[in-house]
Amino acid sequence: MEMTILSVAEHIGAAVEGDPSVEITGVASIEEAIPGDLVFAETERLFRAAEESQATAIIAPVGLGVSRKPVLRVHRPRYAFARALELFAPEQSVKVGVHPTAVLGESARLGHSVAIQPYCVIGKNVRIGNRVVIYPFVYIGNDVTIGDDTIIYPNTAIHDRTEIGHRVVINSGCVIGADGFGFLIHEGRHYKIPQIGNVSIGDDVEIGANATIDRARTGTTRIHRGTKIDNLVQIAHNVEIGEDCIIVAQVGISGSVEVGDRVILAGQAGIKDNIAIGSDSMVGAQAGVIGDVPPNSVVSGYPARPHKDQMRVHASLHRLPEIVKTFPEIAVAIQRLTERIEELEQRLDGSGQ
Amino acid sequence: MEMTILSVAEHIGAAVEGDPSVEITGVASIEEAIPGDLVFAETERLFRAAEESQATAIIAPVGLGVSRKPVLRVHRPRYAFARALELFAPEQSVKVGVHPTAVLGESARLGHSVAIQPYCVIGKNVRIGNRVVIYPFVYIGNDVTIGDDTIIYPNTAIHDRTEIGHRVVINSGCVIGADGFGFLIHEGRHYKIPQIGNVSIGDDVEIGANATIDRARTGTTRIHRGTKIDNLVQIAHNVEIGEDCIIVAQVGISGSVEVGDRVILAGQAGIKDNIAIGSDSMVGAQAGVIGDVPPNSVVSGYPARPHKDQMRVHASLHRLPEIVKTFPEIAVAIQRLTERIEELEQRLDGSGQ
Amino acid sequence: MEMTILSVAEHIGAAVEGDPSVEITGVASIEEAIPGDLVFAETERLFRAAEESQATAIIAPVGLGVSRKPVLRVHRPRYAFARALELFAPEQSVKVGVHPTAVLGESARLGHSVAIQPYCVIGKNVRIGNRVVIYPFVYIGNDVTIGDDTIIYPNTAIHDRTEIGHRVVINSGCVIGADGFGFLIHEGRHYKIPQIGNVSIGDDVEIGANATIDRARTGTTRIHRGTKIDNLVQIAHNVEIGEDCIIVAQVGISGSVEVGDRVILAGQAGIKDNIAIGSDSMVGAQAGVIGDVPPNSVVSGYPARPHKDQMRVHASLHRLPEIVKTFPEIAVAIQRLTERIEELEQRLDGSGQ
Repeated sequence: MEMTILSVAEHIGAAVEGDPSVEITGVASIEEAIPGDLVFAETERLFRAAEESQATAIIAPVGLGVSRKPVLRVHRPRYAFARALELFAPEQSVKVGVHPTAVLGESARLGHSVAIQPYCVIGKNVRIGNRVVIYPFVYIGNDVTIGDDTIIYPNTAIHDRTEIGHRVVINSGCVIGADGFGFLIHEGRHYKIPQIGNVSIGDDVEIGANATIDRARTGTTRIHRGTKIDNLVQIAHNVEIGEDCIIVAQVGISGSVEVGDRVILAGQAGIKDNIAIGSDSMVGAQAGVIGDVPPNSVVSGYPARPHKDQMRVHASLHRLPEIVKTFPEIAVAIQRLTERIEELEQRLDGSGQ
Repeated sequence: MEMTILSVAEHIGAAVEGDPSVEITGVASIEEAIPGDLVFAETERLFRAAEESQATAIIAPVGLGVSRKPVLRVHRPRYAFARALELFAPEQSVKVGVHPTAVLGESARLGHSVAIQPYCVIGKNVRIGNRVVIYPFVYIGNDVTIGDDTIIYPNTAIHDRTEIGHRVVINSGCVIGADGFGFLIHEGRHYKIPQIGNVSIGDDVEIGANATIDRARTGTTRIHRGTKIDNLVQIAHNVEIGEDCIIVAQVGISGSVEVGDRVILAGQAGIKDNIAIGSDSMVGAQAGVIGDVPPNSVVSGYPARPHKDQMRVHASLHRLPEIVKTFPEIAVAIQRLTERIEELEQRLDGSGQ
Repeated sequence: MEMTILSVAEHIGAAVEGDPSVEITGVASIEEAIPGDLVFAETERLFRAAEESQATAIIAPVGLGVSRKPVLRVHRPRYAFARALELFAPEQSVKVGVHPTAVLGESARLGHSVAIQPYCVIGKNVRIGNRVVIYPFVYIGNDVTIGDDTIIYPNTAIHDRTEIGHRVVINSGCVIGADGFGFLIHEGRHYKIPQIGNVSIGDDVEIGANATIDRARTGTTRIHRGTKIDNLVQIAHNVEIGEDCIIVAQVGISGSVEVGDRVILAGQAGIKDNIAIGSDSMVGAQAGVIGDVPPNSVVSGYPARPHKDQMRVHASLHRLPEIVKTFPEIAVAIQRLTERIEELEQRLDGSGQ
C-alpha cells in the first residue's frame, strides 16, 4: 500500500510541513521504522529519535520540534496515529455468505452481508444482524441474538440465550454464557444450583482471547456498552459491569460483583463476590478487592486499600526487618534506664532529699 | 412454563401457606422479580424485600416472616430453591445420535442414547457411556473412556488415554491431558521430558470453561469424585485432588501437588509444586502456598500462613509507615534520657552520695 | 512394549549392573511402579525406596547405592530418564496427508509428509513446512508461515501473518496473534488503536494449552528460540522474550515488555508494561514486577524486589502485630522515664547540687 503524505494528512486531519507528495508505505514504531514509514512522536525526546530514524515522515503535535522530514501536525497525536494505522492496516478479506459446511438450526434469521465461515454450528432461533462475521469453529447455542457489525473470532462458544449488541468484537477461544459456578452442600456433597439466567453484552464491547463470562443463576450477567475486556479474564455469574470500563488480562471478577462506569481493573486483579466498585475507580494490578470501593477511588494491594496508603506501606516494608531486630533492644534499654533511675531515686531518698 | 404453587411445593418438598392454585411462571432474584416469579428469602431482611417485591410467591425457611403472598415453607431453603430452579430451567434439547459430520476412529464403542453433535473428532479405541452428550468441535484422542451421563461442551480437547467418570460436566474450551510442563537442562538448553502418563477424572466432577489439566509425566493426574473446578483453572502434571473439593476460578496448582478431600481453594490462589494440602482446609483468594498445609487449616496471603495471623498482620500493616517514621526518634529519645541519667549520676557521685 | 535392559541401556547410554536380559515393560515413578517398570533414583533415600518398590530395574547415577535389581548406571540421570521415557512413550499415530474436510485457502504451500487432520481451516498464502502436524479445529489465518516438524494441537487459532519456526509445539486452545489490547480515549470513549503487527515464534518454542500471545501494534511480538511457555499464560502486544526462557502457568506479561535470555518467570507472576527483565533473572511465583530487573537478579513479591530482602520482610511480618501493639507503650514508658528524670533533676537542683 502506498499513499502520499497529503492523502494521509487528509485522512487524519493533519497540516503538512514539508513535501506533501512524498509516498508513505507503512506505519511503524520509531525503533523499527524503515524508509517509507510514518512514525509518531509525542515528546521532544521521541521527536529527535524519529528525526534520526529511517522513517520518512513524522506525526507530531503542533509546536513540537523541527525536522528535515515531512511532519504531519495534529492536535491529538495519539488519535491521529490510530487513524493512520487504520489506513495501513492489512486488509481483512472476508467473504460474505454462509459457507456450505456451516450448520444452522431452525428459524435462524440472518441479516444482509453476513459472513459465516466454514464449520460454524449455530443453534435454533438465532438472530444475527447485518454484516456480522463469524469465523470457523464458532458454536452458537439456541435463542442467541447478535447485533450488526459484530465479529466473532474462531473457537469461541456462545451459549444459549446470550444477547450480543452491535459492533462487538469477541476474540478467539472465548466462552460466553457457560454455567455459573454455583453449588450448595446437600447430604455432604456439592449439589449443583441450576444456572438458568443468561449473558448480555452491550454495543461496542470487546472481549479478549480465551476470556470467560458465565451466565447468571437467574437474571442476567451484564457487560455494558463500550467496555473493553482483555485476554483470559474471568467474569462470574450475575456480575454487572458498567460502560467504558477497561478490564486488563487475567482479572477475575467473582459472582454478583457490580462494577460502575469507566472503571479500570489492572492485570490479574481479583474481586471478591458481592462487592460494588464505584464509577471512575481504578484497581491496581494483582490487587485483591474484598470490600466495596467508593467512586473515584484508586486502590491496590491485598486486601485492597487506597493506593497512596498502600504505597506508603510498601515503602516502609523494607525497614521492617531492622525494626523487628532492634525492637527487643529498645525494651532492654528502657528496662536498663528504669533501673538506673530507680537507683538514683533510692540514692536521693537515702540522702534525705 | 407455568406451574401451580402446589406442583412446585410437591417437587421441592415444601408446605404451602396461602393459595396453592396460584400460577408460577419463573424463578428470580428478589431485585429482578416480576409478577409470576418465585423468589427465595433466607433472612428477615430478605423476606421483607421479597414481600415488597413484585414476586408472586416466596420460598422461606419454616418460622421466618409472615406474608400476604403464598409462602413455600421448607427446612433447607437453599436446596429447595435449587430444586425450584431445576423446574424452571430452560429445556436443553439434545438430539440423540451421531451427527454425520462427526469423525469417529476405529473401534469406538458408544453406549445408547449418545448425542455426538456436528464436527466432533473422536480417536481410536474410545469408549463412550450411555446418554453422553458431546457438543461441536470437541476433540477426543485415542484410548479415552467416558462414563455415563457425562456432558462435554464445545471446543474442548480431551487428549489420549484420559479416563472420565460418570455424570462429569466439562465446560467449553477445556484442555484435558495435554503434556505436562517438564523440561531439564541438557547441553545448555531445555530438553523435553516426555509426559507419558494420563488424566483421570472421577464421577460427578465439574470442570469450568477454558480450564487446563495436564497429563502426568508417568502415572496419572487425578481429580477425584465430586470435585468442582471453576473457569481458567490450571492443574499441572501428577497433581492429585481429593473428593468434593471446590477450586475457584484462575487457581493454579503446580506439579505433583496433593490436595485432600473437601478442600476449598479460593480464586487466583497458587500452590507450589510437591505441596500437600490436608483435607478440609481452605486456602484464601490469591494466596500463595509454598509449604504443606495441615488438615482443617485456613491459610491466606503470600507466603500462605494461618488466616488469623495473616489478618492480624494485614490489620497492623497500615500502622507500619508511622512506626518506621517514629522509630528513629525513639533511639534518639533513649539516647537523650541516657545522657540525662549519666549527668544525674555524675552529679550524685560528685556530691558523694 | 517390551525391551531388554540391554536395549534400554544402549538407548540411554548406561552401563548395566545385573542381568541385561531382563525385560522392561514400562517407566514409572517409584510410588506407582509395578513389576516390569524401570524407575529413577537420584538420591540415597530414593534409591532405597526404589530397591523396596515393585520396580524391576533402576536408573541411578554412577556410585549411588547397591541393589539386587539390575541398575542402569549413568552420569546424567535426569537426562537418561527422559531418554527412557521417550522409549516407552505411547506411539502417536499420525496419519500423513490432508483430510478431505480440511479447508485450504488459495496459494497454500505444503511441505512433504504433512498431516492436516479433519476440520482444519487454513487461510490464503500459508506456507507449511515438512512433517508438520495440525490437529482438528485449528484455524490458521492468511499469510502464516510454519516451519518443519511443528505440531499444532486442536482448537488453536493462529491469526494472520504469524511466523512459526521449526519444531514448535503449540498445545490445544491457544490463540496466537489476536489483536493487542490497545485503546485511547477519544471523545470520552475508548477508541481502538489498530493492531497491524504480527507474532513471531522461534524454533523449538513450546506453548502451553489455552495460552494467548497478542500481535504487535506495529512490528512484531517475538518469542525467541527454545523458550517454553506453560498453560494459560498471557503475552501482550509488542513483548519480546529471549531464548531458552521458562514462563510458568498463568503468568501475565504486559505490552512492550522485554525479557532477556534464560529468564524464569514462576507461576502467576505479572509484569507491568514497558519493563525490561535482564537475562538469567528469576521472578518468583505471584510476583508483581513494576520496574526494570537487572540481569542475574532473583526478585519476588509485590512490588518485586530482591528475593533475599523480600524473604527477610516476610520473616519479620508476623512480628508486626506485636510491635504495633507494644509501640504505644514505648512512648508511654519513655514519657514516664522522662518525668522521673525531670523530678530527679529538680530534686537535685533544689538540693543545690
